[in-house]
Amino acid sequence: MSDQQPVQLRVGLAQVDTRVGDLAGNAELVTTWTAKAAGDGVHLVVFPEMTLTGYPPEDLVLRESFAHASEQAVAELARTLADQGYGDVAVVVGYLAHSGDGAPGPAGPEVEREDAADLPGDANPRTGTPRNAAALLHGGEVVARYYKRHLPNYGVFDEARYFVPGTELVIVRLHGVDVALTICEDLWVEGGPCGVAGQAGVDLVVSPNASPYERAKDDLRLPMVRRRAAEARAPIVYCNQIGGQDELVFDGDSMVVAADGTLLARAPQLVEHLLTVDLTVDPSAAPERREGRLGPMTVSRHVVSDGPVPGFEPRPGQVVSPLSDCEEVWRALVVGLRDFIDKNGLPSVILGMSGGIDSALVAALAVDALGADRVHGVGLPSKWSSDHSLSDAQDSAARLGMHYSVVPIAPMVDAFESSVELSGVAAENLQARVRGTLLMGLSNQHGHLLLATSNKSEVAVGYSTLYGDAAGGFAPIKDVPKTLVWELARWRNAHARDRGQTEPIPENCILKPPSAELAPGQQDSDSLPSYEELDAVIADYVDRDLGMAQLLERGHDAEVVARVLRLVDTAEFKRRQSAPGTKISLKAFGRDRRLPITNRWRESLPSVREGAS
Amino acid sequence: MSDQQPVQLRVGLAQVDTRVGDLAGNAELVTTWTAKAAGDGVHLVVFPEMTLTGYPPEDLVLRESFAHASEQAVAELARTLADQGYGDVAVVVGYLAHSGDGAPGPAGPEVEREDAADLPGDANPRTGTPRNAAALLHGGEVVARYYKRHLPNYGVFDEARYFVPGTELVIVRLHGVDVALTICEDLWVEGGPCGVAGQAGVDLVVSPNASPYERAKDDLRLPMVRRRAAEARAPIVYCNQIGGQDELVFDGDSMVVAADGTLLARAPQLVEHLLTVDLTVDPSAAPERREGRLGPMTVSRHVVSDGPVPGFEPRPGQVVSPLSDCEEVWRALVVGLRDFIDKNGLPSVILGMSGGIDSALVAALAVDALGADRVHGVGLPSKWSSDHSLSDAQDSAARLGMHYSVVPIAPMVDAFESSVELSGVAAENLQARVRGTLLMGLSNQHGHLLLATSNKSEVAVGYSTLYGDAAGGFAPIKDVPKTLVWELARWRNAHARDRGQTEPIPENCILKPPSAELAPGQQDSDSLPSYEELDAVIADYVDRDLGMAQLLERGHDAEVVARVLRLVDTAEFKRRQSAPGTKISLKAFGRDRRLPITNRWRESLPSVREGAS
Repeated sequence: MSDQQPVQLRVGLAQVDTRVGDLAGNAELVTTWTAKAAGDGVHLVVFPEMTLTGYPPEDLVLRESFAHASEQAVAELARTLADQGYGDVAVVVGYLAHSGDGAPGPAGPEVEREDAADLPGDANPRTGTPRNAAALLHGGEVVARYYKRHLPNYGVFDEARYFVPGTELVIVRLHGVDVALTICEDLWVEGGPCGVAGQAGVDLVVSPNASPYERAKDDLRLPMVRRRAAEARAPIVYCNQIGGQDELVFDGDSMVVAADGTLLARAPQLVEHLLTVDLTVDPSAAPERREGRLGPMTVSRHVVSDGPVPGFEPRPGQVVSPLSDCEEVWRALVVGLRDFIDKNGLPSVILGMSGGIDSALVAALAVDALGADRVHGVGLPSKWSSDHSLSDAQDSAARLGMHYSVVPIAPMVDAFESSVELSGVAAENLQARVRGTLLMGLSNQHGHLLLATSNKSEVAVGYSTLYGDAAGGFAPIKDVPKTLVWELARWRNAHARDRGQTEPIPENCILKPPSAELAPGQQDSDSLPSYEELDAVIADYVDRDLGMAQLLERGHDAEVVARVLRLVDTAEFKRRQSAPGTKISLKAFGRDRRLPITNRWRESLPSVREGAS
Repeated sequence: MSDQQPVQLRVGLAQVDTRVGDLAGNAELVTTWTAKAAGDGVHLVVFPEMTLTGYPPEDLVLRESFAHASEQAVAELARTLADQGYGDVAVVVGYLAHSGDGAPGPAGPEVEREDAADLPGDANPRTGTPRNAAALLHGGEVVARYYKRHLPNYGVFDEARYFVPGTELVIVRLHGVDVALTICEDLWVEGGPCGVAGQAGVDLVVSPNASPYERAKDDLRLPMVRRRAAEARAPIVYCNQIGGQDELVFDGDSMVVAADGTLLARAPQLVEHLLTVDLTVDPSAAPERREGRLGPMTVSRHVVSDGPVPGFEPRPGQVVSPLSDCEEVWRALVVGLRDFIDKNGLPSVILGMSGGIDSALVAALAVDALGADRVHGVGLPSKWSSDHSLSDAQDSAARLGMHYSVVPIAPMVDAFESSVELSGVAAENLQARVRGTLLMGLSNQHGHLLLATSNKSEVAVGYSTLYGDAAGGFAPIKDVPKTLVWELARWRNAHARDRGQTEPIPENCILKPPSAELAPGQQDSDSLPSYEELDAVIADYVDRDLGMAQLLERGHDAEVVARVLRLVDTAEFKRRQSAPGTKISLKAFGRDRRLPITNRWRESLPSVREGAS
């Protein structure tokens, strides 16, 4: 603080939907939202983690050409913002930093990589230092660069594979306000950068995030941000991205929490949004400033401007309540599906409609995500299909207003059965594969992406046919247990009723006992325990990794547990449809080349700028 | 050294083929090979990395029940060895250590995991400290435990996800010889544990490994082991596992190198083998002993026995020359396929035989791996199949003595084409999918695993049909580029000729121009550049991650590069056959649950001992 007058700052949180690999498109997103924020009088705009590259970029990080393009893109973005007249707005963007200084990469300085046999010197991943970075842009320049200190490496995160951790806490004085930069996981660590900021003395902490959605995760975030605000002795600006990226979906839930834990503002989940908050800093209450080495980090300070902004009437922050559990899941599934289809540039989707609850639910999700005109359903009755199957499928499509046609599968099934002798499960699977082949034929002919309708319970126990009903380019409810499928269907119908709209899912699909209809009179309960029991065991065994002893302690039935575990363990085979093959080279397709499917980066685009045209 | 007389030690390197998750079976392997070594007068036997759990155990490490069972298994193994009369042999085995002391896990002590929302206290992965460990067993006890210091986290390795690094160098005195324990990656690090051992003063370094095969990697290992021997000022005993584990294959190549770099012994590649070496240590030349903190590690010393073994006549070490490039690859593919089939308990395999080189090569590999009686070929001619296709397929099967039958696909293709209008690529793919459906039907009916015959060039550019020829539970040549397919075929025929055996691959399959035969007169060269050009670009773009600019610098044709890169980038979609779906839970199937397919661990086995019965 340069004097003892209270100083003000209007901060914007740009909760945007980036696209992995799309440096040019993401830079454009930054200029568009900065313009919007500038129009609203914002002095500092914060974007999500790795804004320019998208998150997670996975093995793109290891490609030097991409890393260099990211470095170029951030410098160019600073100039573009100034050229467009936003040079006086401070903008915090995430990007992939890559110094060409030959400093050690994530594997460490002296490691002779076991997989480096065949690397030419110029492609050795040990050169260069990839970092998960945030830059503060102002006046056409990159004013400061912060490197993420805590690299998560569990669950869906692999950051130890890609990045070198930072050791410096970067603090930028903006209009007399000392702003500390942090990134995502840094905020989840007690005694981490927020603790250092608390010792160093700051007025504000900003935190760009890429925090994937998980049911009820919003309940964790607010208390966590509060603990860090207390530690930092300053307000925290938490900006999270939204949108789908392959399997992950990000829900936003951006927020601002005061040093005393007061929730000042909170954004709606699962939509792009500019959240603004007016902060007033009382310099007389500000903690003493310290520099240099503080605990595990070195503090560096940069000054953009000392003079406070002219006083203005602060507006109250917008605080949006989190969504209900069902609505949150529904919207996450809609956004995940929509972004997978749209970010991959696909025109439309196709799915088989069996008249069962899974395909009815996926159809409703698809119509909510893409609009009815981009969704094509096909009824594929066999000789074992019941009358209600066909009528429920038709009813479902009619309620949704989507395209619908019917192709009976008997002629194809008969042709196979005349050529080879198939019985039992082999004969059941044949029907599912004839359907898969028909749907893939229509997909190839018309350019629709095939949606698989498998739910998590089925996938867990392998109750599906490989290359049959499991076929598809995206499986919207792959992580939704069957009991939640029913719950979501009921919620979606109630949501429609509340709005005076047609219920999108036929009541009969919800009520009838589930059946694969691959043999006469077949029901799921012939092969599986009740879905209530099954889903409870899956939650404990798969999600929580509990062993047999712990499962029994938690009150599951011993016989059910034994049965479900055997099914889950043996279905691992089926869940890896993309056949493994023996690796003999530096990078085999499979375990050691991890690239996003949804990825806009193309080597064939000669430069970032031209790529945007 | 307790006195100045030269002391001797006979060391055994048990280059064995373990199975992931099979604690009981792997323990049995240790007792069997220790008995063999004891019979040969060995004083110290070294087994590969993570002997008891198998490597890589992936997310099994996160399951506490498994970690506890591993701890139990190593203690029990020490007792079993003593009970069987081998208590006086020192045995170094790898295992998963897991202290229940609530010490910090890999994510660090204070990290609030982003994915921990739903974890009950007793399943919180932060409790317990998983380590990649080596135990020295002697006299019925676990005498010493070493924890791997350097955790590789690149390429196929994810050890930062699983383990906490060790900080202690453990040295055990055995018959007056000071033996330092290290594990795998520790040996690849200059100034790592071998450097510390050099400062501490030791007579021998042992190194259990799980170092995956890669072409020409054997050329890297010997110079690397030599550098570390010089650093440690002591001989190095490098024991590597052999065998296939899902996509990985381990080639053994175990060796012993003297302090001066002399290669004392080297094991044959890709077979189980007991390599022995007689070491003589001259105490007058031994480095001074130091203890306590040395550089990054603390040195701890343990004494098993001071008294030297009775003098014996040393035998010269066996030094096997590495295999030629083609033989090495061939055997790696054979072992990878054999272990995938046998470790998963599968009786037999089936594959489609087109008369082309890929299926002819896969059939020959399968017969070498499993024997002709476990291999079933099916010719699946269409109206576009040439006469030579059928005769070459038949010739191929006859040369190999495998089962063979023919099922023409026209009736099924006609049935589909009468039901839906398919043209162009959709019609081509239909034929491949009818074949896939037939083969999967026979697979389900008879219990054969379907082998996919796709090669790496095809997989890279997506020149295959999803759920058609790409279908299968294992793809033996998925990492073999087409040019190498031809080279291997020629090598295998020459190998047979040299032995006076029938050439297993018809010359015509090698010589004819490649064609998918999905349309009249179709050839691969209609859609792709020459395989020489294609494979050269794939090696640089996929294996070496080079960008466009570097590719052009390396002399590739610009038009070919642009074409290949576009194909490789868009085929990412096809390579992930197992449809992604939006993640909403703690663990979705896909990116955050990583389990081996080949895995013997079953929660339903109540204990390690009973599991063995």
